Amino acid sequence: MWTLDRKSKKPLYEQIADHIEQRIATGEFPPGSLLPSERKLANQLGVNRSTVILAFAELRSMGIVESRTGSGTRVADAWRGNITRHTPNWKRYAENGGFLPNLPFLRKIREALLQDPSMIDFASGELSADLAPIDEINAILNKQSNFAYFGYDNPQGYLPLRQALVEYLYQYRGIRTSESSIMITSGSQQSLFLITQCLTSPGDAVAIEDPSYSYSLPLFQSAGLRIYPLPMDDQGISPDDIRSLFKENRIKMIFLNPNFQNPTGTVLAQERRKKLLDIASELGLPIVEDDPYSLTAYDGLPLPSLKSMDSNGGIIYIGSFSKIAASGLRIGWMVAPHSVIQRVADARQQMDFGPSVIPQGVVARFLQSDSFVAHLERLRIQLQFNRDLLIEALQNELSGLVAYNAPQGGIHLWIKLIPYVHEGKLLDEAIKNGVVYVPGSVYGSNSGFARFTYARPNSQDIQTGIAGFARSVRKLMAP
Amino acid sequence: MWTLDRKSKKPLYEQIADHIEQRIATGEFPPGSLLPSERKLANQLGVNRSTVILAFAELRSMGIVESRTGSGTRVADAWRGNITRHTPNWKRYAENGGFLPNLPFLRKIREALLQDPSMIDFASGELSADLAPIDEINAILNKQSNFAYFGYDNPQGYLPLRQALVEYLYQYRGIRTSESSIMITSGSQQSLFLITQCLTSPGDAVAIEDPSYSYSLPLFQSAGLRIYPLPMDDQGISPDDIRSLFKENRIKMIFLNPNFQNPTGTVLAQERRKKLLDIASELGLPIVEDDPYSLTAYDGLPLPSLKSMDSNGGIIYIGSFSKIAASGLRIGWMVAPHSVIQRVADARQQMDFGPSVIPQGVVARFLQSDSFVAHLERLRIQLQFNRDLLIEALQNELSGLVAYNAPQGGIHLWIKLIPYVHEGKLLDEAIKNGVVYVPGSVYGSNSGFARFTYARPNSQDIQTGIAGFARSVRKLMAP
Repeated sequence: MWTLDRKSKKPLYEQIADHIEQRIATGEFPPGSLLPSERKLANQLGVNRSTVILAFAELRSMGIVESRTGSGTRVADAWRGNITRHTPNWKRYAENGGFLPNLPFLRKIREALLQDPSMIDFASGELSADLAPIDEINAILNKQSNFAYFGYDNPQGYLPLRQALVEYLYQYRGIRTSESSIMITSGSQQSLFLITQCLTSPGDAVAIEDPSYSYSLPLFQSAGLRIYPLPMDDQGISPDDIRSLFKENRIKMIFLNPNFQNPTGTVLAQERRKKLLDIASELGLPIVEDDPYSLTAYDGLPLPSLKSMDSNGGIIYIGSFSKIAASGLRIGWMVAPHSVIQRVADARQQMDFGPSVIPQGVVARFLQSDSFVAHLERLRIQLQFNRDLLIEALQNELSGLVAYNAPQGGIHLWIKLIPYVHEGKLLDEAIKNGVVYVPGSVYGSNSGFARFTYARPNSQDIQTGIAGFARSVRKLMAP
Repeated sequence: MWTLDRKSKKPLYEQIADHIEQRIATGEFPPGSLLPSERKLANQLGVNRSTVILAFAELRSMGIVESRTGSGTRVADAWRGNITRHTPNWKRYAENGGFLPNLPFLRKIREALLQDPSMIDFASGELSADLAPIDEINAILNKQSNFAYFGYDNPQGYLPLRQALVEYLYQYRGIRTSESSIMITSGSQQSLFLITQCLTSPGDAVAIEDPSYSYSLPLFQSAGLRIYPLPMDDQGISPDDIRSLFKENRIKMIFLNPNFQNPTGTVLAQERRKKLLDIASELGLPIVEDDPYSLTAYDGLPLPSLKSMDSNGGIIYIGSFSKIAASGLRIGWMVAPHSVIQRVADARQQMDFGPSVIPQGVVARFLQSDSFVAHLERLRIQLQFNRDLLIEALQNELSGLVAYNAPQGGIHLWIKLIPYVHEGKLLDEAIKNGVVYVPGSVYGSNSGFARFTYARPNSQDIQTGIAGFARSVRKLMAP
């Protein structure tokens, strides 16, 4: 008798779908015949009914079975058992191409959030509805939407937004640039994707901070890059490490997040920035500066961007609206030398022809409005408030069991768990307790760390969420 | 945006020299990089070329740039006189990666349109501001924008839009599907990109119509695919050709645009559709059905989609809002079996986390509004009107020199030029005469063809545009 292979990488529902398809193909269930009920199959196979539902959905999407409410699932009439008809082997097709699957922990978190909307979410790296300027954006849409045309746009993005960003970058980040040096992207993520796909080749070596958000991105591996870690202390990376990495591994590019680094919250010290730029220009080595958090600096005074200190054209600067306004706008940008912008803008025409003009227009107007400044001030206060709530909850619930540095900006707290707890089991247990966060190994760290985003849960849920996390830790701690 | 101050006492060439120096200092043009040509800068800035020559001379005298005859003007390496500082070799970086550059003809057309906004545009495959539902979309934005949240969204796209599309696809295209089988993409372009990147591997063979819009997309070559053409007559491709292509070249996928094909306007005949589906399912060969034009059918009665006849799950269906509403919304979709949707949705998380919820919300509301039906009716009448204007103009200006079939839907007229005229020279001459269109070789055809999009120019410019095109043809015709 057929049984599931629970050690296989193939999901259970796919195994069941294959199994049923095979039984249909061999004539066990002729066209038009009724299949066993979901519950019956679930019992037979020893799985949840939801797994059988997924398997039936798969078969339905392939045209093999049909369901009608109240009358069960039947083999499709069109499925004639005719040996000259073949469905493409979609599963084999889906194994093609260069994109690697996303990380299992991140997929598990996404699943948990989809399945239970009441889950307290310390995992998603974004602002809650309370912190995001929802009213301001709706107001801009409602009062000022008067687009003259919605056509294919300039490959670098909507000109009024690039013009607004020239002002913004100078005012807030000390960067002098022009519209022609800016490209609008679908969040920072698309900037990173384009940089890896257009400026590096498989086998190239790049350096990133350790730990780093970049480890969570299979896009580096999908591009075939070799990744070298730059260790960090509480002042960021040590620039001298770059020289030896360059000598030994011919690294071609450095990816850094100097202000309120994701996940650690670290700020790269000012004197290290100068040294870093000297070494990079000595080696002719480009730096990709990812800068999504600077405007959240709780004292309103972030350190200057590397790009503002770069007289050499060696820095590609990436910014985004996702962490200071709303990730759902999908607006990011890249500032880079002319030849880089030309290259990535041309390549993007093959991918998607650029983002919609509507969110680009909204962001342009928001940047130029008084409500932007007011929003930023409120955001900084609320983020600091949430950070303090999180730290207070940790002190209440896990005193002596966790260690961390309180960040002075950004949206993440990087927590070291002092007792040993199995990383995968802890996440499973936390999900059972209604809480998600991101295990540290996602960022390339050894186990025993976790990233808690305090911008995403509602303030009033932070204490409850940490209490649930603490129950999970205590349950799994070695006695 | 920087402009010249024509009232200033400072000469124009000095203003330009200062401006360029500043752009060099901010890293837009790093040491060693090529500056835009004199002619290009003169066009951009609206000055004589001689003024730019003076500005370059000024910069040369300051040691900031270097010119070598025949190889343009570069930023000096010694700029800043510091030999221990090296700019990354951006040009070499830009040669990396898998994306091939876009086609030269398409880049030339884009340049021409950017430089001269009065150019009569038969090249861009989209609707003019007159034909697009601009007022309707602004009205939806103004009256109904009440988003509760703008966060990272479901990887398959905004649920209310997918729900609206389930209705839309059944009502207009006879396709029965569910939200879980739909993924929203940034236009059809992103669907095609994801399909080639996720479901094929370098070296795979695919079949496309000849001529075909797909030839204009380096994305097939960028994915390393071998492309085999399927010849067309006035009823579309011949399904039997697929069997021999499959036998000889092991093609893995077929890309088709069955209704009002781009660029020819051809409709694949009904009996051929049935045969095509039989052969494809016999071979287990998937078909990607690109269907952007069906709703423009001038009689309101497009042939049924292949997907609606597909009982076998062998078709990936691609749709878009670009050709029936507005390309600047950047909303397309893909309907595919479960395993395909899972794969492409996961991969897209590495690219861009999906399109903004704002245009997705707008399209969902527009699809469900009465104004959508009214817009479609008006659009069909106006497209047919523009098609007739274009044909009338061709009869007036080029009688006996061109041949074509009048399409019964869509937005393009495919024109055969009867006399021999050099394809590249003709486009150059047309640009001088204030007209752009797309040369046929862009779609893989032999020279002697051209695609004229009659949806893009204003109705009142069609006769003038064709007159300019006719002058260009007559000038270059062999005497």
